[in-house]
Amino acid sequence: MRALTVRPGVADSLALVEVPEPEPREGAILVDAVAVGLCGTDWEIVRGGYGEAPSGSDRLIIGHENLGRVAQAPPDSGFAAGDLVVAVVRRPDPAPCPACRVGEWDMCFNGRYTEHGIRGLSGFARPRWRADPDALIRLDPALAETGVLMEPTSIVAKAWEQVDRIGRRAYWEPAVAAVTGAGPVGLLAALLGTQRGLQVHVYDVTTTGPKPDLVAGLGATFHGQSLPDSGVKPDIVLECTGAASAVLDALGSAAGMVCLMGVAPVGAPVPVDVGRLSRDAVLGNHVVFGTVSANRRHFDAAGRALAAADPGWLRELITRRAPLARYGEALRRTPTDVKVVLDL
Amino acid sequence: MRALTVRPGVADSLALVEVPEPEPREGAILVDAVAVGLCGTDWEIVRGGYGEAPSGSDRLIIGHENLGRVAQAPPDSGFAAGDLVVAVVRRPDPAPCPACRVGEWDMCFNGRYTEHGIRGLSGFARPRWRADPDALIRLDPALAETGVLMEPTSIVAKAWEQVDRIGRRAYWEPAVAAVTGAGPVGLLAALLGTQRGLQVHVYDVTTTGPKPDLVAGLGATFHGQSLPDSGVKPDIVLECTGAASAVLDALGSAAGMVCLMGVAPVGAPVPVDVGRLSRDAVLGNHVVFGTVSANRRHFDAAGRALAAADPGWLRELITRRAPLARYGEALRRTPTDVKVVLDL
Repeated sequence: MRALTVRPGVADSLALVEVPEPEPREGAILVDAVAVGLCGTDWEIVRGGYGEAPSGSDRLIIGHENLGRVAQAPPDSGFAAGDLVVAVVRRPDPAPCPACRVGEWDMCFNGRYTEHGIRGLSGFARPRWRADPDALIRLDPALAETGVLMEPTSIVAKAWEQVDRIGRRAYWEPAVAAVTGAGPVGLLAALLGTQRGLQVHVYDVTTTGPKPDLVAGLGATFHGQSLPDSGVKPDIVLECTGAASAVLDALGSAAGMVCLMGVAPVGAPVPVDVGRLSRDAVLGNHVVFGTVSANRRHFDAAGRALAAADPGWLRELITRRAPLARYGEALRRTPTDVKVVLDL
Repeated sequence: MRALTVRPGVADSLALVEVPEPEPREGAILVDAVAVGLCGTDWEIVRGGYGEAPSGSDRLIIGHENLGRVAQAPPDSGFAAGDLVVAVVRRPDPAPCPACRVGEWDMCFNGRYTEHGIRGLSGFARPRWRADPDALIRLDPALAETGVLMEPTSIVAKAWEQVDRIGRRAYWEPAVAAVTGAGPVGLLAALLGTQRGLQVHVYDVTTTGPKPDLVAGLGATFHGQSLPDSGVKPDIVLECTGAASAVLDALGSAAGMVCLMGVAPVGAPVPVDVGRLSRDAVLGNHVVFGTVSANRRHFDAAGRALAAADPGWLRELITRRAPLARYGEALRRTPTDVKVVLDL
């Protein structure tokens, strides 16, 4: 079978190459791939800026946002042929750190985690893959078209869980959330914000294409200007771009909580009044936290969030689909793309 | 009776002036003042940079770090003459915000809180004052000399409580804490860190005077160099200086949690690679939070921490004492001062 692979660290090494069938040691359950979503991490891997092949291999099968259907499962596995499933992306090292040992590999302390399609484990851009039951989530069959959004939704489900858990440190009743960036992560963060009954504002520089309508479809407010220019005073900011200006706008917003989710390339230093930011954080009891990856708890929460969402809205979030063979076309980004998906 | 007062906003207006006896509306319990501690906020008020007189008055009685002994208390008040007591500093507005309503006036949302000796309420640098029972904490009689450290200890008790509460968001077992700044707040933060069984490192530019010995007296390690230069990899940083360089060192330390407690004057912008800081926070799941003031829960925790501390160490933290009349001398800071106290 053919899989989409790169030679990690080598730009323009992306190629469909013949790979062996998944080996039983990859997991007890054999899955027919349905789709793979593409995200910023994939582009960074394709550019040669990130990624690590499995031990003993010089190529990495890419694709971590996944969706599949069980082809074969052992009778006692809890899964059956035909189940719509998604695999978790990050896995603990065989010698797990204490966080990984309790299933919180997203908070890994020793840095020896692996990630399908990113770091040390084969990805899902291939016709068939395997997973163990503890790494597999069964989805509502109604998500056959949009379940590929599970992985990015798990990221925002973790962010919102962390907002809740950190918020329990003291009395706090947020009403207004700002989301900077209307890419898939920002829009899914806005979806989960509206599902919690918050008044949500979404900020993006791209005002053409489907983003404004997708925001409006949630009952949220789209802004083509910056957070400070909008005059909105949020209780929470979810920063989904990683751009220095957006990060500084979030930190300067007087929001009680700022969640950083965006990862941008390391940039050039910009002038910052650190004394003022620090003073405002102290006098306002502000919290800023970063969040990455997701564990099984967050995938479960993501499944519930997607099942509760408007199916039409989820379909519109996927702005382009292409078969695996047309991966080159899928990877050419346009400013109005939201989520681009490869069909297997 | 004479009280130490300023005309808020007017530098060099500090003066001992005749004031009336405390009025019954200030509280049911009459307290003979024992001592008042001086801190950075007092210096800022004396310089005219901060402070607000009670409504209808043009002078503010300063002094918020307090210690007193009950002179008269109603029989049903829970207090009796002779009790060693400390008053909480921040109080809710008569129309409290939801946080103030549950006693968390330290997290006040509407900004209409008042603070004794700082903002809208008379301070404690006077021979007698009054307080209501709900604003008064009874201390272990053994703290007659050092109980004036309660208010700064309440600040660090809140910081450590917030470290714990935020830390509950996921598996986390910190072992090493770094404290930047060996002033009273830094040293008391180090005390509470060692009481929790952490390995504590304390950083200060002043390597002469009592600070290194005070740190060693806790079983902690003193560093006359910066956090990155020391090579220590802390799980938690408690930043107690507010200096931009120390804040940036804390944020760049890879610690899972950074607590900001220092308030420095708003400074000049410095070049910062915001992209790198943000990326590190995201990929490391880091939390940064600011903390200010304290509520009754934190004063109670401070009382327990001081009662459990080595009495000799606490006495050495108070490096100078002066009677109220010699306030001018008390307010002249030297680089080796830790805590300076006015005796009433």
